[in-house]
Amino acid sequence: MSQDQALAEFLLRMGDNTLILGHRTSEWCGHGPALEEDIALANTALDLIGQTQMWLGLAAEVQGQGKTADDLAFLRDAWEFRNLLLVEMPNGDFGQTLMRQFLFDAWHVLQLRALTSSSDARVAAIAAKAVKEATYHLDRSAETVIGLGDGTEESHARMQAALYYLYPYVGEMFLSDAVDAALVEAGIAPDPASLRAEFDATLARVLGEATLTLPAARRARGGGRDGKMHTEHLGHLLTTMQWMQRAYPGATW
Amino acid sequence: MSQDQALAEFLLRMGDNTLILGHRTSEWCGHGPALEEDIALANTALDLIGQTQMWLGLAAEVQGQGKTADDLAFLRDAWEFRNLLLVEMPNGDFGQTLMRQFLFDAWHVLQLRALTSSSDARVAAIAAKAVKEATYHLDRSAETVIGLGDGTEESHARMQAALYYLYPYVGEMFLSDAVDAALVEAGIAPDPASLRAEFDATLARVLGEATLTLPAARRARGGGRDGKMHTEHLGHLLTTMQWMQRAYPGATW
Repeated sequence: MSQDQALAEFLLRMGDNTLILGHRTSEWCGHGPALEEDIALANTALDLIGQTQMWLGLAAEVQGQGKTADDLAFLRDAWEFRNLLLVEMPNGDFGQTLMRQFLFDAWHVLQLRALTSSSDARVAAIAAKAVKEATYHLDRSAETVIGLGDGTEESHARMQAALYYLYPYVGEMFLSDAVDAALVEAGIAPDPASLRAEFDATLARVLGEATLTLPAARRARGGGRDGKMHTEHLGHLLTTMQWMQRAYPGATW
Repeated sequence: MSQDQALAEFLLRMGDNTLILGHRTSEWCGHGPALEEDIALANTALDLIGQTQMWLGLAAEVQGQGKTADDLAFLRDAWEFRNLLLVEMPNGDFGQTLMRQFLFDAWHVLQLRALTSSSDARVAAIAAKAVKEATYHLDRSAETVIGLGDGTEESHARMQAALYYLYPYVGEMFLSDAVDAALVEAGIAPDPASLRAEFDATLARVLGEATLTLPAARRARGGGRDGKMHTEHLGHLLTTMQWMQRAYPGATW
């Protein structure tokens, strides 16, 4: 694997995370529990799709096959996606959506912060732009997790259930393979495992304040970031997300 | 409008009804409330898809543009579909699905029975085959409507709600336009309005036994059979139904 191949794979991982989570979040549009939350979720989705355009745009450039970010977003099938399983999990209720967002944001901020000093100037530039948005997302999702976790009996129970449901997908963020090794070697990206301690500290602080119990088991379910085995949810998501470019390939407006 | 154009349009109407209702019914596969019901629904869906193949196959032949039934099923967009709005309505609960099936079957049997004496031998042959299946479907859906309508307080309330929800889409079955006029003139198909009295008698008998109240209002919401205005539900259904031929055009196996 050449360094460009490893870089392209890494960029897909970054861009597919924001694409899939952005699409999932956009599914809330018009269905939020309150107008302000509805708009906040739509704005989060827009931020994530904006980041996707940068990551997948650079991925297409590095691949050098004349593709665009849109081609990568709309014309790949499930097994070609490199997002974490966490972000393809269903929205569930509002609490589950915000718990998923919090778990992602807590990692995303650390990852982007590290990438701002990437040896690849293009990666560093995207990270510098994205980390500001991600920091804001984390503030908001952490605050909501605390509010609902330390809320009513009903909201507490729902947030605890969401945490149990989603936590098995957290470990994948810290797995690594030959792609990561090549990027660490080149100073482009951090070693995934190096982010775990600070991630755990964020979770301990926020979930503590939210009076939620962190599951003890830390076994990681992988298969998303390396594309080996996505969940059944991804295919259904793509069917909806990709329908227009599938039905009208190359359509512009 | 030539007679062949009118015939092609009519055949789309017949085939799109069975295609869309067949797909809707197939959505239950693996989710039925009991194993026997699950299998019965899957069998109904298969019957309807089989009838679709005959109607759309003949439609493609009459159109004479070298298309196949599959092309018509998978490569048209919402506004080109000619099904009744009734069959694109969401499944809702099991009761709503069976109420929709009953309302369709009650009309379908009368329509097919009339078509067995069509002046077009190809239409008569398809109708002769399909009417046997439709008669069986009607026996089954009527029986279930009676069982659930005259069942528990809960099942009665759900069936009554399903009837109120779906009845506004019944009137469309009996609307007619220039297509119908041309086919009546040629002896190919019955005047839609001529089926209403017997349809109403079936409803009165079955709904009476089911202790359900027929809504008084008979205003018909149209737009499906002439393709002028489908509901929002059709597009979502097509997104799922058509994804494979959209993603892999011309795929065979």
